[in-house]
Amino acid sequence: MKNFYEVEDSLKLNNLGNEIHGMISEMYPICRSITGNGFRDTLRIISKYIPIKVKEVPSGTKAFDWTIPKEWNIKDAYVKNSKGKKIIDFQKSNLHVVNYSIPIKAKMPLSELKKRIFTLPDKPKLVPYRTSYYEENWGFCMSHDDFIKLKEGEYEVMIDSSLSQGSLTYGEYFIKGKSKDEIIISAHSCHPSLCNDNLSGVAVAATIGRELSEIKTKYSYRFLFIPGSIGSITWLSQNEDKISNVKGGLVLSGIGDSGNIHYKKSRNGDGLLDKAMAHVLKQSQEAAKMIEFSPFGYDERQYCSPGINLSVGCFMRTPYSEYPEYHTSADNLDFVKAESLADSFGVCMKALGVLEGDGIYLNLNPKCEPQLGKRGIYKAMGEQKDNVKKMQMAMLWVLNFSDGKNSLLDIAERSGFNFTEIKKAAKVLEDNNLVKQL
Amino acid sequence: MKNFYEVEDSLKLNNLGNEIHGMISEMYPICRSITGNGFRDTLRIISKYIPIKVKEVPSGTKAFDWTIPKEWNIKDAYVKNSKGKKIIDFQKSNLHVVNYSIPIKAKMPLSELKKRIFTLPDKPKLVPYRTSYYEENWGFCMSHDDFIKLKEGEYEVMIDSSLSQGSLTYGEYFIKGKSKDEIIISAHSCHPSLCNDNLSGVAVAATIGRELSEIKTKYSYRFLFIPGSIGSITWLSQNEDKISNVKGGLVLSGIGDSGNIHYKKSRNGDGLLDKAMAHVLKQSQEAAKMIEFSPFGYDERQYCSPGINLSVGCFMRTPYSEYPEYHTSADNLDFVKAESLADSFGVCMKALGVLEGDGIYLNLNPKCEPQLGKRGIYKAMGEQKDNVKKMQMAMLWVLNFSDGKNSLLDIAERSGFNFTEIKKAAKVLEDNNLVKQL
Amino acid sequence: MKNFYEVEDSLKLNNLGNEIHGMISEMYPICRSITGNGFRDTLRIISKYIPIKVKEVPSGTKAFDWTIPKEWNIKDAYVKNSKGKKIIDFQKSNLHVVNYSIPIKAKMPLSELKKRIFTLPDKPKLVPYRTSYYEENWGFCMSHDDFIKLKEGEYEVMIDSSLSQGSLTYGEYFIKGKSKDEIIISAHSCHPSLCNDNLSGVAVAATIGRELSEIKTKYSYRFLFIPGSIGSITWLSQNEDKISNVKGGLVLSGIGDSGNIHYKKSRNGDGLLDKAMAHVLKQSQEAAKMIEFSPFGYDERQYCSPGINLSVGCFMRTPYSEYPEYHTSADNLDFVKAESLADSFGVCMKALGVLEGDGIYLNLNPKCEPQLGKRGIYKAMGEQKDNVKKMQMAMLWVLNFSDGKNSLLDIAERSGFNFTEIKKAAKVLEDNNLVKQL
Repeated sequence: MKNFYEVEDSLKLNNLGNEIHGMISEMYPICRSITGNGFRDTLRIISKYIPIKVKEVPSGTKAFDWTIPKEWNIKDAYVKNSKGKKIIDFQKSNLHVVNYSIPIKAKMPLSELKKRIFTLPDKPKLVPYRTSYYEENWGFCMSHDDFIKLKEGEYEVMIDSSLSQGSLTYGEYFIKGKSKDEIIISAHSCHPSLCNDNLSGVAVAATIGRELSEIKTKYSYRFLFIPGSIGSITWLSQNEDKISNVKGGLVLSGIGDSGNIHYKKSRNGDGLLDKAMAHVLKQSQEAAKMIEFSPFGYDERQYCSPGINLSVGCFMRTPYSEYPEYHTSADNLDFVKAESLADSFGVCMKALGVLEGDGIYLNLNPKCEPQLGKRGIYKAMGEQKDNVKKMQMAMLWVLNFSDGKNSLLDIAERSGFNFTEIKKAAKVLEDNNLVKQL
Repeated sequence: MKNFYEVEDSLKLNNLGNEIHGMISEMYPICRSITGNGFRDTLRIISKYIPIKVKEVPSGTKAFDWTIPKEWNIKDAYVKNSKGKKIIDFQKSNLHVVNYSIPIKAKMPLSELKKRIFTLPDKPKLVPYRTSYYEENWGFCMSHDDFIKLKEGEYEVMIDSSLSQGSLTYGEYFIKGKSKDEIIISAHSCHPSLCNDNLSGVAVAATIGRELSEIKTKYSYRFLFIPGSIGSITWLSQNEDKISNVKGGLVLSGIGDSGNIHYKKSRNGDGLLDKAMAHVLKQSQEAAKMIEFSPFGYDERQYCSPGINLSVGCFMRTPYSEYPEYHTSADNLDFVKAESLADSFGVCMKALGVLEGDGIYLNLNPKCEPQLGKRGIYKAMGEQKDNVKKMQMAMLWVLNFSDGKNSLLDIAERSGFNFTEIKKAAKVLEDNNLVKQL
Repeated sequence: MKNFYEVEDSLKLNNLGNEIHGMISEMYPICRSITGNGFRDTLRIISKYIPIKVKEVPSGTKAFDWTIPKEWNIKDAYVKNSKGKKIIDFQKSNLHVVNYSIPIKAKMPLSELKKRIFTLPDKPKLVPYRTSYYEENWGFCMSHDDFIKLKEGEYEVMIDSSLSQGSLTYGEYFIKGKSKDEIIISAHSCHPSLCNDNLSGVAVAATIGRELSEIKTKYSYRFLFIPGSIGSITWLSQNEDKISNVKGGLVLSGIGDSGNIHYKKSRNGDGLLDKAMAHVLKQSQEAAKMIEFSPFGYDERQYCSPGINLSVGCFMRTPYSEYPEYHTSADNLDFVKAESLADSFGVCMKALGVLEGDGIYLNLNPKCEPQLGKRGIYKAMGEQKDNVKKMQMAMLWVLNFSDGKNSLLDIAERSGFNFTEIKKAAKVLEDNNLVKQL
């Protein structure tokens, strides 16, 4: 089994991007919700990549202040006009039905129907995504262009759904590392045909899981494929004993669009992944932005609630709700790009690489510099090649600041070198018995 | 009796500005000094607004390194030319006499007289304000335009003043709040006919006092109408036992001109009012400036001396000595504006409102978010109105950071919301038993 | 003997610059190295200015991870072409021989010779400076212009050097102050005919030493004239018992060129001289820059190694290796300027003046301001002259912040006044029994 540190340079991101996009394509058509068979079908696809365990939590189960709702399933839905023509058809897009709609079969005039239809007047070509999880209700979504063409007359509405005792389903994949300290990678997987907001995170998380399963890791890793909010709340309420092992984590979502990376820090702002991500983004992503924590967004809201307070950040490209395609039919397979997916994957792996490679070293010759020359790791006489010189400088940084207080990441930050260079320098010095890891 | 928090929105600042200006007009003609009947007359006017207690401290009393000086009073003063015409007349403006001038009646040639006359050559139309409190002396002030017109000849000078055993007078108004912790509002009231530098502070302080007397307050409030320097020194030296109760304070002066607000922080820089004022100004006064403490200025010099070290800041509009009208006859009734006075009052009340409303709350459901929806305080299905959304966000901020460490002001600062919004959100959450105040 | 504080204003920098330049001229021709007679000759010149003690440490002596190398001496060296003409001649410039070259006498074709010659193709007129201290080797340096003119044929090479048991030589000058706490001034003195990179530091250090020897100082001062790296390592390894007395220090090098001052902070970044230099440079050298510590450069690498960790900074003008003349024949007597040398000297003396003058004072009348007027140190009535006003303001700063926590330097930094002004104000207050030094 390879070491994390050795694998980093060998990742081939080009193929990976297409592969991740392919996985998204497979999951896209499914009508997911926070419970039900759509979610189970999705986990079945994920399990082709990584051996997740599927958990079922019965409706009615308490989860802190919440209760697992009834399970929702849907077979079909449509609206027909007076001529019997389907003017809204669930089979064409599952976004047309308000997610969690109760079953209905009725006839009604246009004026009544209109109260049940959601559109986006300022984006008239797009179908919005709407839900009503915790209030029993029903409705349809359509483009505003189509909506304004609707003529007076009687309409037939039909939603063949069920809302009944069942369970909330989620998938979990645990990789045991050397330490019981663990990192959570969480992706909400409950949105129907939406690519960036949910499937990009799901697919990249699965790919990270597959990659890590082939590497010896220091940390243990837990991958959670859960419905948004209620899923993380459920996992946390059922696993309170494990929470103290969690040393950090990432919520992945909206990481396939072509915008720049935005990393939203955890509540405490200085968690393992906050620091690692700050370093990686500064070194490799000029346009990336670090964002302060706020109690909105995705499941980091739950992981970072004051009584849980995990160091879980949220990794995004364009922040949620800041792109016009967000929560509409335009968040489709064209909107997510293979290269963005690969880049998101690569940055996450680099940040995890920092976590895995970081440590505090101790200079074993702390009084003045050791004589590197006599050990053959310092070039004498004449000018040196740039690369050799850079490695020597990295070694001097490691030697000077390996005083038992600074981690390699601290040294990388202070020196301006990237973490990988500092790690390599520390390795050379360790091999020469000049430093040892504490 | 109303609660501070409830009264804040109901303040009608428009009328108030004119009212405050009216109070200034009433005090303007009086020839005040650091002692004497002018000061007493001023306190009599203030006591029409708030029930101040008048204190008399005998001449010769020790006040730390200082001694209460003799009491000064003046009835009349003039300079007559050889034709018997008054070319300087105290009755026209009390600025014409150097404040604390000893009595004199003499004849002298122009050359001698000139040594006793102060003018402002670079502001030739204005009469300067000059004092000689701690060195027995006499003199006159006049405009430079008039000064250069003086002709050779014999002049008669007359100052009908007295400097004798008496007392230093000051006014004090104490409002008892729920706590013995108190806030000092201090205004020097010793300048003669100068409106911005002194009367604006006096009148706004009195108005704040009147307003607070009708509200249930958490803090106790002490209003001090004192002569500059010697007055605060005297109060501090006579009330050393009370100093430990003082949790913060404001020196008010120069708050009627039309310049932008400048708040000079207390010596420690992080006092209750420093933080409250920083928040209020950032939220509502784009052009306002926070200034670091310096040991010059008004009575904050004494309150912030190292052995006293109270968290007393100085609230100004244009900083003292930075406007050309400062300490001249141009600091008159036209120079202070009703709307500036009202604005200064309003900002001070807002800052006090932060003090009164602040507190540390505890989230009673700290593990994950509580389900706001089931309590009817979270809108489901469909887009929400901006205001409702904003209040929900404020509630999420309060919930997330009410971990026993952050005050509402801390949360307001961190979230970017203004204090009032955060306070309202905390109230809703408290009413729903989701948080409690510690 | 004068007090440091009294001498500061009287330094005549104009003459001094020329004097320092003269000292450099005297040392310039000598072929120095890290050991040998060239170093001893240099110390002999220095001892004309200050009574240094010359120390000899035998070859083979251990110095932490290092060993004192054999002593190197050289009498002559040349390369002759087939016509017997010297095309390289040590007598013309000692830079022509790779420093520490072993003896050689041989004939060889051009192709062989070329492997032994160093040039600077991008600075074709300059002769580079090269060394091979810790790997036995030999070689020559010449201008690239001359190098490309070399014709095929047989060449005679001769280096009349010796590398044998001997010693490493360094010079030390200790000035005993009131305290055993000491400041190190260190200058590497091992470079041959290079003016800025080494002799500027040597000459200014000697001048500072001469100046301090005539002043009563609070701190003790230790001046070290040592070979680079191995010299500081040797001194530190032989004087471990003295290290705890060292409270700060300066490495001086490259301080004669006409560039702006760059002060590189010590490893901890907040040492006595770091703070003093930051203050002095901010107040008097607009273009000067403070640089963060890095483990490259001069002997600060050793003083700031993690097991030694002294607060020793490096004082430079243009940073080492950032000027084209660096380590070439162009770093000659024209390159160093009398006025730059004098300015460097002056700034160092000012920074030492801050160290010497700094202290924590206690306000003896901490409750409210003392009445300065009755002591005659506060002007009453009328406007004051700018200078008097400034001194009064400085006194108020000293009074307010002399609470036992702030040093005069802290007060200078906070107030924006320069240290000298604050020191003078403290002196006036001390003379009036208003403050006392702790």
